[in-house]
Amino acid sequence: MSPIKFTIEKELSGTLARAGVITTPHGDIQTPAFVTVGTKATVKALTPEHVKGLGAQVVLANTYHLYLEPGEKIMREAGGLHNFMNWQGPTMTDSGGFQVFSLGAAFNAKVGKLSKVAQEEMTIPEEVDEEDKAGKLAKIDEDGVTFKSYKDGSEHRFTPERSIEIQHAIGADMIFVFDECTSPMASYEYQRKAMERTHRWAKRCLEFHEESKLQNEKQGLFGIVQGGRHRDLREESARVLGAMDFAGYGIGGSFDKDDMDKAVGWVNAILPKEKPRHLLGIGEPIDLFGAVENGCDLFDCVAPTRMARNGSLHTSDGRININNARFASDFGPIDSACDCYTCKNYTRAYLSHLFRSHEMLAGTLASVHNLHFIISLVEKMRTAIFDGTFEQLKTEFIAQYYKK
Amino acid sequence: MSPIKFTIEKELSGTLARAGVITTPHGDIQTPAFVTVGTKATVKALTPEHVKGLGAQVVLANTYHLYLEPGEKIMREAGGLHNFMNWQGPTMTDSGGFQVFSLGAAFNAKVGKLSKVAQEEMTIPEEVDEEDKAGKLAKIDEDGVTFKSYKDGSEHRFTPERSIEIQHAIGADMIFVFDECTSPMASYEYQRKAMERTHRWAKRCLEFHEESKLQNEKQGLFGIVQGGRHRDLREESARVLGAMDFAGYGIGGSFDKDDMDKAVGWVNAILPKEKPRHLLGIGEPIDLFGAVENGCDLFDCVAPTRMARNGSLHTSDGRININNARFASDFGPIDSACDCYTCKNYTRAYLSHLFRSHEMLAGTLASVHNLHFIISLVEKMRTAIFDGTFEQLKTEFIAQYYKK
Repeated sequence: MSPIKFTIEKELSGTLARAGVITTPHGDIQTPAFVTVGTKATVKALTPEHVKGLGAQVVLANTYHLYLEPGEKIMREAGGLHNFMNWQGPTMTDSGGFQVFSLGAAFNAKVGKLSKVAQEEMTIPEEVDEEDKAGKLAKIDEDGVTFKSYKDGSEHRFTPERSIEIQHAIGADMIFVFDECTSPMASYEYQRKAMERTHRWAKRCLEFHEESKLQNEKQGLFGIVQGGRHRDLREESARVLGAMDFAGYGIGGSFDKDDMDKAVGWVNAILPKEKPRHLLGIGEPIDLFGAVENGCDLFDCVAPTRMARNGSLHTSDGRININNARFASDFGPIDSACDCYTCKNYTRAYLSHLFRSHEMLAGTLASVHNLHFIISLVEKMRTAIFDGTFEQLKTEFIAQYYKK
Repeated sequence: MSPIKFTIEKELSGTLARAGVITTPHGDIQTPAFVTVGTKATVKALTPEHVKGLGAQVVLANTYHLYLEPGEKIMREAGGLHNFMNWQGPTMTDSGGFQVFSLGAAFNAKVGKLSKVAQEEMTIPEEVDEEDKAGKLAKIDEDGVTFKSYKDGSEHRFTPERSIEIQHAIGADMIFVFDECTSPMASYEYQRKAMERTHRWAKRCLEFHEESKLQNEKQGLFGIVQGGRHRDLREESARVLGAMDFAGYGIGGSFDKDDMDKAVGWVNAILPKEKPRHLLGIGEPIDLFGAVENGCDLFDCVAPTRMARNGSLHTSDGRININNARFASDFGPIDSACDCYTCKNYTRAYLSHLFRSHEMLAGTLASVHNLHFIISLVEKMRTAIFDGTFEQLKTEFIAQYYKK
């Protein structure tokens, strides 16, 4: 019996949007909600108090990264992710599928470039669109995937069961099935083949998870809908997985930016309404509006924190690069409409100084701001669903943010 | 009229040690106290809330670094250091003397190596022990020093008056005279010559500071005793500067490690008792005991935070290197006798993971711990002065910390 419950509190007529509450063993999540990424059991540059203070409700860690370092044994002995990282709120882990394919490939393909990115956080799969090609890099077979560590080239193997086993050791409240992530450039035939295998793997994950009665009561398993940009595949994937008793659903894979809203809509029109839906890897404001409107409840993305560490900061009037010379003597806050810790206490001039001086506090203050900006934007969408003002919020926000 | 007041609350008989309170426009400092270093208007890796939470009473920023970046104009327009960095407690700035000589030299001498260190924080002067030599690097004359920026090689000039002017712009509660820092290897003749010039510069700093009635009421100026390792010079410097009406005194320059306690004792036996004394650049536990016993009230050092960022952590049983493999599965706190935020909430295994993963939180948690360790050690010395148990504390601490 999954410990994850979802209650819809309000639906926005004429759209698929809904506001609700996800109940987890570590507290509730008011949805729609942006999920903060803490890849290696830490939200980069922030303490858990910062994370909580900026309004984050839930943290997503990464199975692939935690499997390689510190390893599942340490995660288990530590009493799981919550204890290890000192975050007592709700948590998730992704299954490692995306990383196994993208980083496993990267190691052989372009280790120099990609393993640097990987060290920092994560990357986008390149040219792993055909099994033939992927076969040379991360070897896929019906049972699982053999891949090389991006850290030292050592060989490892994930199967659906192993991924779930590792996620049991990590112990997040919400976990994901092990799926095959295809490239948006993959052929229709390959997308179908990969999707069908992903469905078989999803079933194996679910069975393995349900067999562990103890973990099944502590952790909820999410399926992941695949199918690329093809409507028939997306709908088939939503039907097949929707018929299995998952605690919730991830929507994975790459879409064309322009097709994303539509594709999400196809999927969410079919997925069981009473289960939460997590759109994986989305963090751009306009995409968040589209995803909420089309029935998604959760989103995660490394963009707010990664951008922050590079000095790219969200404001109501669009993004600014704090390294720009004009900010060195600007004594206003990053965004005068923002009430985050950084905007209440520090000026653009100070941030600018910290970035130019390569001070660690730069990344901390910028991450607090960017995460707060995105998290509170999604909170505003939630409020607007209740108030029936979603369309107005969307129109006004987008006009101001993207005006330039 | 200096706004800095010092009240001695208790003296430890048979020693020069005393416990007291320094009153500043931004609050009181219970002494003896370890001063936290925030070189570039930030304590590296920490927010001001961390700094306050770990028990720091006062932050020391650096005139040389803030002059180069963001510059005195920005510091003034920001409303001074307190506003700029969001630290509302007491602050100090050193005069930039040490940096002008060490980094000015470094730029010409070994720019590759030293400017990297300098970027990180600060360095030790190398081979600037003779005026002839120093003349080629940072040019000293009776009026001041011409030096090159460690950042870009651009030429700059500090005089005693300019240093004070910049320190007025930065606006710390306690500021220091501009002195010449000599190498411990310098000859007696050069030490004397440099000391006598430092005395003339001290007088000029004091006159310049007193002429600015407004700043004189807001900021207290500290003289700096020099004289190297020579008793007659140290005593002469203490007498000459002690006769000028400074708000307090710094004790600068390098000593032989073994001579330090003695040299500090020579100086403090002469300096006016009713003024606070700051031993510059000291942070090793055994040195702090010696300095307190010999009449110092304040100390600062980058060591606790710099060591922390490298994974070298204080414990009651001495230092450990958290990168050591055995800590990867050690689920105890860094120091079971420590009550800092890090020790209360995180394990050695987690710290170990963060360091191996190059996560920024590693530096934050380690800095909180090391600073708390040193700050609370000095607090314990204060309590022991009141209780008459100083000698016992010293004996027990040293036996346990240095036992290996």
